[in-house]
Amino acid sequence: MTTTKRTSLISKATIDRLPLYFRTLRLVQDEGIDVISSDELGRRLGITPEQIRKDLASFGQFGKKGVGYYVNELKHNVGGILGLDNHWNIAVIGIGHLGAALANYQNFVSLGFNLVALFDQDPKVIGTVQNHVKVEDVRELAQIVRERHVDIGIIAVPAAFAQEVADQLVTAGVKGIWNFAPIKMQVPDSMHIVNEDLSIGLSRLSYYITRR
Amino acid sequence: MTTTKRTSLISKATIDRLPLYFRTLRLVQDEGIDVISSDELGRRLGITPEQIRKDLASFGQFGKKGVGYYVNELKHNVGGILGLDNHWNIAVIGIGHLGAALANYQNFVSLGFNLVALFDQDPKVIGTVQNHVKVEDVRELAQIVRERHVDIGIIAVPAAFAQEVADQLVTAGVKGIWNFAPIKMQVPDSMHIVNEDLSIGLSRLSYYITRR
Repeated sequence: MTTTKRTSLISKATIDRLPLYFRTLRLVQDEGIDVISSDELGRRLGITPEQIRKDLASFGQFGKKGVGYYVNELKHNVGGILGLDNHWNIAVIGIGHLGAALANYQNFVSLGFNLVALFDQDPKVIGTVQNHVKVEDVRELAQIVRERHVDIGIIAVPAAFAQEVADQLVTAGVKGIWNFAPIKMQVPDSMHIVNEDLSIGLSRLSYYITRR
Repeated sequence: MTTTKRTSLISKATIDRLPLYFRTLRLVQDEGIDVISSDELGRRLGITPEQIRKDLASFGQFGKKGVGYYVNELKHNVGGILGLDNHWNIAVIGIGHLGAALANYQNFVSLGFNLVALFDQDPKVIGTVQNHVKVEDVRELAQIVRERHVDIGIIAVPAAFAQEVADQLVTAGVKGIWNFAPIKMQVPDSMHIVNEDLSIGLSRLSYYITRR
């Protein structure tokens, strides 16, 4: 249906809305609803129906005019576009407050990600359990990442250690890195990296309340 | 310089890049650099110089052709656009792993936000200290929010309690809410709310590694 060429033209903003569509469609399906209009989807998401129709149209023809979207089909397709049906194995490195929060974040599970490993360097933290997964010594990272086929490494260590962890993840063969450390990582061009910055949301809010 | 009318046309994507500009400009200034080109800014940020020039042009005339941007002036202006010079008072409600991570997040301080209150309902957590701020009983939220002039409430409680906390924050007169609970809040139209969803970054990464 979609080709690499075609999807590469999709905007980051659209991609960012897809997980919201996916989660809402799953909730809608749990309610026993088979068909949903873009109006109703928009109401639930706080997004205009026009935006929803535009976003989904960039991937293919999912809805039926005057009827709406078939919930199961659309959910399946959006999940496929996001690659969630790959059920990627994820690992969190750095089990401080943030790492523990990420290890226990239920939405990851509900999106189809599998938490398979946790790492820390602190002997007091190694051996403890978060979300049914035991924290391992970060010195065993390379071996465990390979053994457990970790696809995505989530870096939640202090900035000073982040590059070293990223290097090890790259060497161990992960497909992507999700980085919470406030540094610009040096990784090979072939490595996908998403840098997360929690201060963006707060700054955006500051912008809005300044202008109210 | 900028009017409300004008800034209201600025895209969310541009607003989201401004905190990155602000932080990078501060780092650049700390290095003793007075003038910086959009090329060099772009290199440090991983953003194209064209995008940077376009973003900044939507607010006014900051650079000088063939010279670059005056770092101090641009930092001051970007901070002003984001409203960071208001030094908003922030409070975190719900001191689990995520709330504790947010309470200790150094970037908030470095952007000029003041952490003035923390709240939880758990007697074992109330009275503990995070980032030099004592955790208070959430039952005292309304009073303390008023006393300490909290501008922004950060909701990090479980979904089941989030709406109740939001209602209390609205009544107590905060200007904005930053919500980490995975629910669609009901708040008055006049209240600014930014919903944070940590699974968006991970889903985006899934999208990219699926297509590599």
